[in-house]
Amino acid sequence: MDKPMTQDPLVLFMPSGKRGRFPRGTAIIDAARELGVYVESVCGGRGICGRCQCEVQTGQFAKHGITSKAENISPLGAKEIRYAEKRELKEGRRLSCSAYIEGDLVIDIPQDLQINAQIVRKADDGRIIERNTAVHLCYVEIDEPDMHKPLGDFDRLKAALEKDWGLTGLTVDFAILPTIQKVLRQGEWKATVAVHRDEEEGRARIIAVYPGFKNEAYGIACDIGSTTIALHLVSLLSGSTIASSGTPNPQIRFGEDLMSRVSYVMMNPDGRGALTDAVRKALDELIGQVCAEAGIDRRDILDLVFVGNPIMHHLFLGIDPTELGGAPFALAVSGPVNANAAEMGLDVNPGARLYMLPCIAGHVGADAAAVTLCEGPHRQDSQMLVVDVGTNAEIVLGNRDRVVSASSPTGPAFEGAEISCGQRAAPGAIERVRIDPETLEPRVRVIGCDKWSNEEGFSEGVARTGVTGVCGSAIIEVVAEMYLSGIISEDGVVDGSLAARSNRIVQEGRTFSYLLWRGEPELVIKQTDVRAVQLAKAALYAGIRLLMDKKGLAAVDSISFAGAFGTFIDPKYAMVLGLIPDCDLSKVKAVGNAAGYGAKMALLNRGYRREIEETVRRVEKIETALEPDFQRHFVNAMALPNKADAFPNLAKEVRLPARKAAETGDGSEGGRRRRRSRG
Amino acid sequence: MDKPMTQDPLVLFMPSGKRGRFPRGTAIIDAARELGVYVESVCGGRGICGRCQCEVQTGQFAKHGITSKAENISPLGAKEIRYAEKRELKEGRRLSCSAYIEGDLVIDIPQDLQINAQIVRKADDGRIIERNTAVHLCYVEIDEPDMHKPLGDFDRLKAALEKDWGLTGLTVDFAILPTIQKVLRQGEWKATVAVHRDEEEGRARIIAVYPGFKNEAYGIACDIGSTTIALHLVSLLSGSTIASSGTPNPQIRFGEDLMSRVSYVMMNPDGRGALTDAVRKALDELIGQVCAEAGIDRRDILDLVFVGNPIMHHLFLGIDPTELGGAPFALAVSGPVNANAAEMGLDVNPGARLYMLPCIAGHVGADAAAVTLCEGPHRQDSQMLVVDVGTNAEIVLGNRDRVVSASSPTGPAFEGAEISCGQRAAPGAIERVRIDPETLEPRVRVIGCDKWSNEEGFSEGVARTGVTGVCGSAIIEVVAEMYLSGIISEDGVVDGSLAARSNRIVQEGRTFSYLLWRGEPELVIKQTDVRAVQLAKAALYAGIRLLMDKKGLAAVDSISFAGAFGTFIDPKYAMVLGLIPDCDLSKVKAVGNAAGYGAKMALLNRGYRREIEETVRRVEKIETALEPDFQRHFVNAMALPNKADAFPNLAKEVRLPARKAAETGDGSEGGRRRRRSRG
Repeated sequence: MDKPMTQDPLVLFMPSGKRGRFPRGTAIIDAARELGVYVESVCGGRGICGRCQCEVQTGQFAKHGITSKAENISPLGAKEIRYAEKRELKEGRRLSCSAYIEGDLVIDIPQDLQINAQIVRKADDGRIIERNTAVHLCYVEIDEPDMHKPLGDFDRLKAALEKDWGLTGLTVDFAILPTIQKVLRQGEWKATVAVHRDEEEGRARIIAVYPGFKNEAYGIACDIGSTTIALHLVSLLSGSTIASSGTPNPQIRFGEDLMSRVSYVMMNPDGRGALTDAVRKALDELIGQVCAEAGIDRRDILDLVFVGNPIMHHLFLGIDPTELGGAPFALAVSGPVNANAAEMGLDVNPGARLYMLPCIAGHVGADAAAVTLCEGPHRQDSQMLVVDVGTNAEIVLGNRDRVVSASSPTGPAFEGAEISCGQRAAPGAIERVRIDPETLEPRVRVIGCDKWSNEEGFSEGVARTGVTGVCGSAIIEVVAEMYLSGIISEDGVVDGSLAARSNRIVQEGRTFSYLLWRGEPELVIKQTDVRAVQLAKAALYAGIRLLMDKKGLAAVDSISFAGAFGTFIDPKYAMVLGLIPDCDLSKVKAVGNAAGYGAKMALLNRGYRREIEETVRRVEKIETALEPDFQRHFVNAMALPNKADAFPNLAKEVRLPARKAAETGDGSEGGRRRRRSRG
Repeated sequence: MDKPMTQDPLVLFMPSGKRGRFPRGTAIIDAARELGVYVESVCGGRGICGRCQCEVQTGQFAKHGITSKAENISPLGAKEIRYAEKRELKEGRRLSCSAYIEGDLVIDIPQDLQINAQIVRKADDGRIIERNTAVHLCYVEIDEPDMHKPLGDFDRLKAALEKDWGLTGLTVDFAILPTIQKVLRQGEWKATVAVHRDEEEGRARIIAVYPGFKNEAYGIACDIGSTTIALHLVSLLSGSTIASSGTPNPQIRFGEDLMSRVSYVMMNPDGRGALTDAVRKALDELIGQVCAEAGIDRRDILDLVFVGNPIMHHLFLGIDPTELGGAPFALAVSGPVNANAAEMGLDVNPGARLYMLPCIAGHVGADAAAVTLCEGPHRQDSQMLVVDVGTNAEIVLGNRDRVVSASSPTGPAFEGAEISCGQRAAPGAIERVRIDPETLEPRVRVIGCDKWSNEEGFSEGVARTGVTGVCGSAIIEVVAEMYLSGIISEDGVVDGSLAARSNRIVQEGRTFSYLLWRGEPELVIKQTDVRAVQLAKAALYAGIRLLMDKKGLAAVDSISFAGAFGTFIDPKYAMVLGLIPDCDLSKVKAVGNAAGYGAKMALLNRGYRREIEETVRRVEKIETALEPDFQRHFVNAMALPNKADAFPNLAKEVRLPARKAAETGDGSEGGRRRRRSRG
């Protein structure tokens, strides 16, 4: 093709935004690769797999100085026509391997391409993760055996991978070697090879070989929580989540909270083994479950990314967590862990690789790293606070320039433990509470029933489950409502004088309680319960303040609440109680299983693995136990909301009691939200 | 230290011959490393391990322009004095880490350093292999856990390895990870790490971690023969062979020769598994045996190098050898194989690595590669023929410029099979034969007795075993002696007319036989036996001739006979029979278990792994079955010695019969040997 005298066409790829000039006649896929834009291809440009689809965006892109026209790409070619006849090529879609640059172009590379995937349901929030998976499928045609050139089957396979895919220095899991001979013959010297590229630059590993052409590969992203294990089955080729499932962590039978599991390991000779086996078995069953649901073969799972807090991380890997039970809380390994999934007893493809994100510190685990990766404080200019509340709260604060992190010993109060009427979030548990500031009468909502207790149909709604306790998120609400309605003072003491006004205020020995629910059982918020919540919230807040001090911040720009706790609490009540510092309420959000989402990001794009490894290395780790200021912040934070701090944003939303206020806000959930402007 | 204005001192290292100039005050070890001279060190220059010993060679080295003087090295320093007090430092020995260059020096790096090794016996021929092992021990002191810097134990270990040993990009076998925590505490934050560097450039892998200081590491070199397995236990730090042992290959019970084992695999559903298990179990037992003998812990074995013919290679690796049973004789893998020894069911250190040399072709295996590595045709200018005789003869011919190889289907005659009175080499078997050309009376030697049959004490010597058969090497001799004494003609026919002269010549049907041994049993060399030997030798010779043709050679400069067969046959008789081409007899040598020795070279110096990989890639592989000339050579080679060829060198040693000669040579073994001059 003659090159015109003018400049080469300019091509801009979306969503990456990468751009460059290429001679007319360059295949789109070659241009993309030269720029480092990831375009999947299984068949290596044979126009078979359809994985390299792209779309021309026509129009003027003034910012980029490009006018992208439909005629600036080559007309539909023979390979594309054949593919469209056989499979289906949506209007406007092109195969990057078979479409050529003819002029300036803006090219969109769809990030969740649906081809031939047996999608059952899509369980994530639909955010798009740019793909650059560690595992690729590479279709090759291998030379047949030749007595004149007696290279082995495997060696000819490697030669084909080098010729067609430019892969050199390939290693192979030994376990695969004895199987290759038969696979190549079965596929009549055509095969699809799963190649894993990660761990080290420039190195690739053959992890599976399939006979003939194979156009599907799957991965697992999983957050091993101490209470719940959440797991996603993801197509590595399309990027879409095929199925998700969760199960209670079976280690619970060895101990409800983390420390009791560590104790179990310390007290029982084979305690570590039992806990490891339990969690691995549960994971293996969950994998079986999502595969069955999606109708895929578990042997097609080729890559897995797992996260968990340090103790879950160690127990899953088969490492004794005892050292994490006491100072100096030494991790056995903090960096990322790469292993063969089979070594963890997981029945997936025998060559499947497993990646665990790095841990940040002895109490700030790979789960916190995944949450950080998901929320990305290190990717932005504004100051973001990320909080994951459990028995320990893991706290990450910062921005592009500097990220600090710590954990705070909040104890189990936020999970409903240590609260007299507390219980796990389950049908029958109270999840919402409002208290009338005049009458001090409560109304509640119960999990499993969509009516408030003062609405019609409530009794029928809870007939089956009864009203059995108060779950973690409601503990926050009830104590906050008690404060807003004046039942407790700034220092958390239940005002006994109100007993004269309402029989909800009940004396018990020298203190008073609030009778939240009359029934069987009777649910009472005792003075000790309020104290337990105060201790927990003071610990959380003190940890956050410590990090704000380290960064020299008086306020934060946004707050992300990760985990189940964050999903159910109302940010406003969290702020009323002073769990978190003042912040524009519109910038406070629950981010759900951000740890699982972070794991999925690392599964779909190995660039995120490098990103979080680098970020974790850079994060400044603060050990609260060693910081003299922590105790001071903790004492100050016992008050409601917090003696020493101003809550200007909260004050816009909620009328806070001034000392012992008679009037309170109305408790409605939909307060006006305004953009916060910093002074 | 001030640098003088004159040139830096010149330092020459022996035996490598590498040289360079270094400033005064440079540690010997640093100079060596800069030149790429391998000097072992476990302690990293702390003067503890004593592994880096060197010796100054004093005197004038005119060729190198160096006058090496004792005063050109720094005086014995504090670290050396302390080491000498604690352990022992032989007169003249220095620690390279603690001795500094003060002037021109010739430094010898001893290649089989004996330190602290529990040597039981040294079983090899004492050749010195320059060491550059894949496994190194690296002693490190690790930072203790620190809450302010919550790096994991493993991560701090890696940091120490980077700081003290410059090791970066380290990977670790996952199986080791859970053990590191305890090991580091046990050693009080001192540890010795076994690092494996091979497989790929610039990459290193942590394969074992020991608490505290560890100064021993071992390796295994093994040749898996189809008849016998030979195995050596070698100190990786001193280079010396600590113990050797051998065992019959237990696969024999599945089939005497290779093809019958392949048949067993084809006929039995789990045949491959049974054969693989058998050989792995035997290897594991042998390893236990040499370790027990040497008094070392099998967990201290960190590196293993195995060789074997293609079928043994495949069966050991768990690969189906069926494809090797028929054309195109496709190897499943021809390149080198790296694996974890534990994957082969070998109970050694769980992190120990296993390396198998590459195979050359479907009938020319990793054993032939090891023989090639040992003998080194590719390292020299003259033309070397290397022959390893078994059911197939593996033949390698060439020099630095070009190496060719082939295998010839010699069949089992040379191993005593298909010969009516043939048997394995075992007590009671005839191993030497002389026939009086006048009387045609034989005299023989029998394995287990050091007398000839015509000497006093012979009857007593064989009383226990009897005389039971003729072993492979004696088959050659008896047929050769029959030819030299005129019993058989050039075309191999037993001369029936001699029956008139001697009752040793016996008629059987239409042919005649030679009665070699009167007794129980009676041992008779039949016409069919002579034919079997003729077929075998013609096949071997035809293969050799084919390779000589490929190289355009009329003669070879030297011949190496590898394997047990080569050890026992007399080269002269091999030449009389025409197994091998004419050659100066002083240049024909038996090289014993050269395959095992080649394996040991690859074990002690990873440079040899690259060398043989490169050589095998370059070797031209000739498939005899595809060569029209093979058949012609084969037919021509049926004659004794060979119709078409001249044997000028042989003629100097042995008086060959001219047609049906009446006179023959005296058959004495010690003929005059002269250097052969070509041209």
